Amino acid sequence: MLTKEGCLKRRERLWSKVPDHLEWLLIADPRHVQYLANFMVNPLSFSGGERALLLLERERGATLLGDNFTLRSAADEPHIDAEIIGPWYDHKHSVINRDHALFNALKQVSDRLYGRPGSVEAEWLPVGAWEVLALDHEAHSVSQEAGKKSKANSTLDLGTLIRSLRRQKDADEIALLKHCMEAGAAGQQRAQEVVAPSITEFEVYREVQNAALKKLGRPGLVYGDFRACTSTAPKQGGLPTHYELQAGDLFVLDYSVVLCGYRSDFTNTLAVFEPTPAQQEMFDLCMTGMKAGEQQLKAGAKAADVYKAVKQPYLDAGRGEIFTHHAGHGLGLGHPEAPILVPESTDVLLAGDVITLEPGAYQEGIGGIRIEHNYLITETGFERLSQHHISLT
Amino acid sequence: MLTKEGCLKRRERLWSKVPDHLEWLLIADPRHVQYLANFMVNPLSFSGGERALLLLERERGATLLGDNFTLRSAADEPHIDAEIIGPWYDHKHSVINRDHALFNALKQVSDRLYGRPGSVEAEWLPVGAWEVLALDHEAHSVSQEAGKKSKANSTLDLGTLIRSLRRQKDADEIALLKHCMEAGAAGQQRAQEVVAPSITEFEVYREVQNAALKKLGRPGLVYGDFRACTSTAPKQGGLPTHYELQAGDLFVLDYSVVLCGYRSDFTNTLAVFEPTPAQQEMFDLCMTGMKAGEQQLKAGAKAADVYKAVKQPYLDAGRGEIFTHHAGHGLGLGHPEAPILVPESTDVLLAGDVITLEPGAYQEGIGGIRIEHNYLITETGFERLSQHHISLT
Repeated sequence: MLTKEGCLKRRERLWSKVPDHLEWLLIADPRHVQYLANFMVNPLSFSGGERALLLLERERGATLLGDNFTLRSAADEPHIDAEIIGPWYDHKHSVINRDHALFNALKQVSDRLYGRPGSVEAEWLPVGAWEVLALDHEAHSVSQEAGKKSKANSTLDLGTLIRSLRRQKDADEIALLKHCMEAGAAGQQRAQEVVAPSITEFEVYREVQNAALKKLGRPGLVYGDFRACTSTAPKQGGLPTHYELQAGDLFVLDYSVVLCGYRSDFTNTLAVFEPTPAQQEMFDLCMTGMKAGEQQLKAGAKAADVYKAVKQPYLDAGRGEIFTHHAGHGLGLGHPEAPILVPESTDVLLAGDVITLEPGAYQEGIGGIRIEHNYLITETGFERLSQHHISLT
Repeated sequence: MLTKEGCLKRRERLWSKVPDHLEWLLIADPRHVQYLANFMVNPLSFSGGERALLLLERERGATLLGDNFTLRSAADEPHIDAEIIGPWYDHKHSVINRDHALFNALKQVSDRLYGRPGSVEAEWLPVGAWEVLALDHEAHSVSQEAGKKSKANSTLDLGTLIRSLRRQKDADEIALLKHCMEAGAAGQQRAQEVVAPSITEFEVYREVQNAALKKLGRPGLVYGDFRACTSTAPKQGGLPTHYELQAGDLFVLDYSVVLCGYRSDFTNTLAVFEPTPAQQEMFDLCMTGMKAGEQQLKAGAKAADVYKAVKQPYLDAGRGEIFTHHAGHGLGLGHPEAPILVPESTDVLLAGDVITLEPGAYQEGIGGIRIEHNYLITETGFERLSQHHISLT
């Protein structure tokens, strides 16, 4: 879980980037409410899909706003100073529109924000919530600072600012990602045990999910690519089908384990039965690409240069065309995130970035392979975070 | 999946409730985009948590708006007339704020909506999207119809309207719910096989999930209450812990299987080892309550009367205090939904409602029990949709 210390540090970092005259911030992206306060509606709860809002004030700290059911559906214990509940369901009366219960919570802070400059996260704050704040008080400074005529975005693009802060992970975020990665590795190990001719993609998925959750120790999400990449269809992605694996196929397991919004993301490819020499050769090329990429990893490196390093072995072998996608990307609360390791990337690696390297190779007549590890970027190099065994067998 | 016929029927029904002069509707609640167009970002995809918008126009039909990755992450095939993509990630360049890619898609329709009366779903449309539509064109009729000074809510409360339409399920929605229910029943059956002293709540959860997904035939969500309700802690809810079941405990499995946003929701309680006479007596009371509730189920019945019927056997036995929660509720895309079966409910059952009946009983010294079935309400009575075996053993 995200720690109180970590949430406080992130809020402090956010305030340090906000113009001094702004007294409050209204956070609406569910990922950012999690990032700053460790509150996320558990997607594996009856309230999955509902939302809360987070009001940050320089003077008062963090206030979580939501309906009574939503605030009781947290994936973890939130780190906040207060909560304001919009009553919704009480097991005695009919219910109102649940979204209006959230807006009723917001009405309870409308007066106290009146006349004070602030900013809202315009990417996620609903118009209905905005009306509660701004339209009840037409002279409200909110209107001038944080929305009307897009002035919000000209003075402070809050959503983009938080996205940029998200790149450099704190210790609690890295611990959470490592926890997801341990579970992901347990799933990869289970796949190595069960992948064989005649098992279906979907059966492997269920085995992987079960093993990953056992290691995770609590319910979480497991999703990604669980597909056979065959000699006739070498580039397949997405959730598993009922296709039965056949000797000679390659089975790509590129998946995330997600807990409290944070996701691991790494890959292995397994040969069904045993690899052909051509498959082994392609696998070796991917491994060489990954090693070459690792050589580049450190703070200050250009993402485009990391891409080039991963790609170079393919070009050297005269097979540049079999590696068609990115060489990796940042990870955390979204997929993919900056830095993006692609040929025309303008990103530069930062200490604290958590990224993947994921070379692949796809060729008709042979099949498809992808391998992937996760890394923490440091000033001097990297720490590899994922510990799964990468091997065709 | 939701059918094209079903989506068209729902859009037609929606338009029939909208004032004639409104030419377009911008739908923003992800559940409503699903309801009307069968598009939902698969929560089990790398784009889980992202959003699309649905523009409905009387003349042009349904247009889906989103970034290129989000629109490729559907849980199922959408039923739309057009899609408008805001370019986001291309595997070649760094990425912009993903939310802004969505807004860029919206910009592409801003001109064509200019001057035409319409309405937006204010509960979910982000302020940033609203600015694209309304603030680029200050004289825009959108501002007068659908947002400024809350006129939207005085003329057309789009979100609440769709919520009311959601109550009466169409054939495709019922088929999808039945599919979830079959999977849920397979999970309940598995629980009956594995529940025994020393297995943990979490182990039972993984067994249930695996069996439910096997029956579902594709990845989906399984969540709810998987808790031992013991003589010392008779009312427990939420996701499973590592508590080891003990002889004499009661294990409540009250969970949903969720596919494309639609969720089954039914319950059984299993005695660990074997039930005591007091537990069996409490179970019988729940069964009597459920039967009494079923007697009331038909279109036109008052939800409060259904509650009273379920509660009466407890009162007759002088044990009204052991049944403390609702007697049931509507289900579909949210939890809980109207009609709400509670003492002071003002809801009236409608033909097409899908509801649960869920009597329970919780008493220190004995433990906790809950049972639940799902029903389709008809003009003359009901069809029971859930087929799991309700029994303590």
